[in-house]
Amino acid sequence: MNPTKSDSTPKHAQPGGITGTERHVARSDIHARLPDPQRTSGKATALDRYLMRTILQKAGNPEIEVVLWDNTIITTSPTSPAVRLFIHQRSTLYKILIDPSLAFGDGYSQGIVEVEGGLIAFNEAIDRCTHFVDTKHFYRDGIRKGLSWLKRNTIDAARSNIHHHYDIGNDFYELWLDQQLAYTCAYFSDPEMSLEAAQIAKMDHVCRKVGLKPGDTVVEAGCGWGALALHMAKYYGAKVKAFNISHEQIVYAHERAKAEGLSDRVEFVEDDWRNITGSYDSFVSVGMLEHVGLKNYEKLGEVISRCQRPRGRGLVHSIGCNSPRVLDSWTTKRIFPGAHVPSLSEMMQIFEPSKLSILDVENIRLHYALTLEHWLERYEQNIDQVREMFDEKFIRTWRLYLSASIAAFRSGSLQLFQVVFTNGGNNEIPWTRAGLYQDQSSESIKG
Amino acid sequence: MNPTKSDSTPKHAQPGGITGTERHVARSDIHARLPDPQRTSGKATALDRYLMRTILQKAGNPEIEVVLWDNTIITTSPTSPAVRLFIHQRSTLYKILIDPSLAFGDGYSQGIVEVEGGLIAFNEAIDRCTHFVDTKHFYRDGIRKGLSWLKRNTIDAARSNIHHHYDIGNDFYELWLDQQLAYTCAYFSDPEMSLEAAQIAKMDHVCRKVGLKPGDTVVEAGCGWGALALHMAKYYGAKVKAFNISHEQIVYAHERAKAEGLSDRVEFVEDDWRNITGSYDSFVSVGMLEHVGLKNYEKLGEVISRCQRPRGRGLVHSIGCNSPRVLDSWTTKRIFPGAHVPSLSEMMQIFEPSKLSILDVENIRLHYALTLEHWLERYEQNIDQVREMFDEKFIRTWRLYLSASIAAFRSGSLQLFQVVFTNGGNNEIPWTRAGLYQDQSSESIKG
Repeated sequence: MNPTKSDSTPKHAQPGGITGTERHVARSDIHARLPDPQRTSGKATALDRYLMRTILQKAGNPEIEVVLWDNTIITTSPTSPAVRLFIHQRSTLYKILIDPSLAFGDGYSQGIVEVEGGLIAFNEAIDRCTHFVDTKHFYRDGIRKGLSWLKRNTIDAARSNIHHHYDIGNDFYELWLDQQLAYTCAYFSDPEMSLEAAQIAKMDHVCRKVGLKPGDTVVEAGCGWGALALHMAKYYGAKVKAFNISHEQIVYAHERAKAEGLSDRVEFVEDDWRNITGSYDSFVSVGMLEHVGLKNYEKLGEVISRCQRPRGRGLVHSIGCNSPRVLDSWTTKRIFPGAHVPSLSEMMQIFEPSKLSILDVENIRLHYALTLEHWLERYEQNIDQVREMFDEKFIRTWRLYLSASIAAFRSGSLQLFQVVFTNGGNNEIPWTRAGLYQDQSSESIKG
Repeated sequence: MNPTKSDSTPKHAQPGGITGTERHVARSDIHARLPDPQRTSGKATALDRYLMRTILQKAGNPEIEVVLWDNTIITTSPTSPAVRLFIHQRSTLYKILIDPSLAFGDGYSQGIVEVEGGLIAFNEAIDRCTHFVDTKHFYRDGIRKGLSWLKRNTIDAARSNIHHHYDIGNDFYELWLDQQLAYTCAYFSDPEMSLEAAQIAKMDHVCRKVGLKPGDTVVEAGCGWGALALHMAKYYGAKVKAFNISHEQIVYAHERAKAEGLSDRVEFVEDDWRNITGSYDSFVSVGMLEHVGLKNYEKLGEVISRCQRPRGRGLVHSIGCNSPRVLDSWTTKRIFPGAHVPSLSEMMQIFEPSKLSILDVENIRLHYALTLEHWLERYEQNIDQVREMFDEKFIRTWRLYLSASIAAFRSGSLQLFQVVFTNGGNNEIPWTRAGLYQDQSSESIKG
């Protein structure tokens, strides 16, 4: 899975919260991008201003200022903010009160809210505050958490959720991903390396972590466009069976295997991870767990235990968070239906019931921020081609999604965990992790 | 904390369990170490034999055979076992039925049960079976889990628990630990290195993981005899405040700091971790968590959050296990009162409520097996000196404790986790972990 916007829900008032300041700016100060007929014409009332201040206080007084439709500026930030949020319609203010992330996200997509000073900086300002706001007693989170548990993520639901995001056209993804279409966090062994090199380095990092050797068999759950499966076969001599329920991705991966003469060593299967059968040296899943749903974690552990040989090592690579939470409603409605980003204690619900042993956990969240910066840069560079495929609302939605994701990984409201595991009784495990770092050149491995 | 024997409680019958075999051996086959008057004189009854078979089946049919007081041999192992357990008294058989680990441990200490074929091999045979026996529905574990939650591990209780194990005389520990008395898992960057070198390598590994620099301040929770605190000051130029509630250890550490001229840079405090105040670059705890008690994990996280600066990195090094469980009753009664070894999901109860971010988890359980092998070897080499200090029961108790611990780490029923963490919003974190492995010579760091 690709990353998701962090929850910017205003949750809990700061004790002794700042009462906020208000002023008006001259109209000329504001980039009024919205055509006037769509802008609320009336003045902001005392209630409007009170509610806006309350929202900011509950969000932990982020370093932003809000410009309402009548140019009233409201902020509760103790410092002078570098970013501004424009709300052009009163109805959006009330929607923010009810469901902040959805109202902001949808408002942004429609051009009813706009941001000045940088979309990443805006989201980071929000994330840095809300990360430390106490969410425990906030009723809506509780309800949403309950609802998220009700979500079954059955095989049919999973198929529909995946279709929503991944089957919108390979052409689109080719515009801004790396050449191999790796749509997960890269590993920049050197921060200056190219995105292409960092995606290869990630694949090597994964292969090294599971100790891949020629002749090993691997099952991959959620293989995207097939880059890792093909890499394992081509450079490590592995035999790979790769599962995915995105039709577009599987067709693409299948074609690529054929074109590269790897069809005898890599089998792409359009099916759900729950239907994996057989026995393999390694179970690998990069960026799928976010779509699995908490309720299915124990089942995933059973599948791993069933199909990974006793002496095999496996790896799960997933977006995560520092403490259990639900994803913001905009992301789960508009970007990734059915998605959940687990904390480590939640991830352990996969491994602990099956008594799998965790050997190694690495958090590389800043690598995801950097990966996303590359993606966003390419996205903007190719925006004209995107515009030929999709409308303005889509363009703004994806810009927000990529920008907010950068902010979430930078601010620490999202993490990226790579977890290596094996059978509880397996002693054929690396003595130290030094081997992962002995030669960073991926070419030397492949040689 | 030093390691603990894994729970060898027979828990749950294997479906379709083997009915077991019985035979008699000629008396001359058996090393009858117990004086005859203490041995049960009667024949083993049909009930005795039935109960013994049932115990073995519930333990998952370990590869052992049991020799009863009348030389009846009972086994349910499908293969021919290499290790034998001698039970010289009927009462012990019934005690094993009620509380297997306590009855076995106490019986061994008293010489009422004996093992042929190696104490480590015996424990490993038991561990390898019980590790995969389903413990979920076993009533006694449930009750013990409940009771372990009731244990408050208050400051007073903790002091008494620690006194029980650590205040039995520094002279004793000097006989079999390394020169610096590091009583926790060593890190053998090379398995052939000496115990002394591996304990230094462990300290360097910890210092590197928290990124220690000259002038940094460190608080250490549970400092043993002070080896790590002194190492940090001496070789990394850190200023360390180290807490411990073992009086004997603190007196020793204090003397060593004075002797080495490090008193101005290392302060040893005889106090509980709950009373830590101040602000430090790093919070480090090696081998103390096992004594903290699950109920206090959230409190520990609060102490860490309060005293570690926002840009600091900390480390907790602890024995753990693959899934939540209670320690066997012998260990918690005779070796480590109040001890608990957490699974990773349990450890997260420290970090998640405080929104600390996990950067790195490393499992080095096989290093603890090797560390313990060194300890046991030295223990046996110096057994005559131990005998001058303690009685035979003590000698056998400690032999069992060290041997069973080796078995537990070898069989995978115990783990050793090093967890690195930082404030959730801290971006001053290592870009990769390569720096940990760039030069394995600890001298080069210290230079």
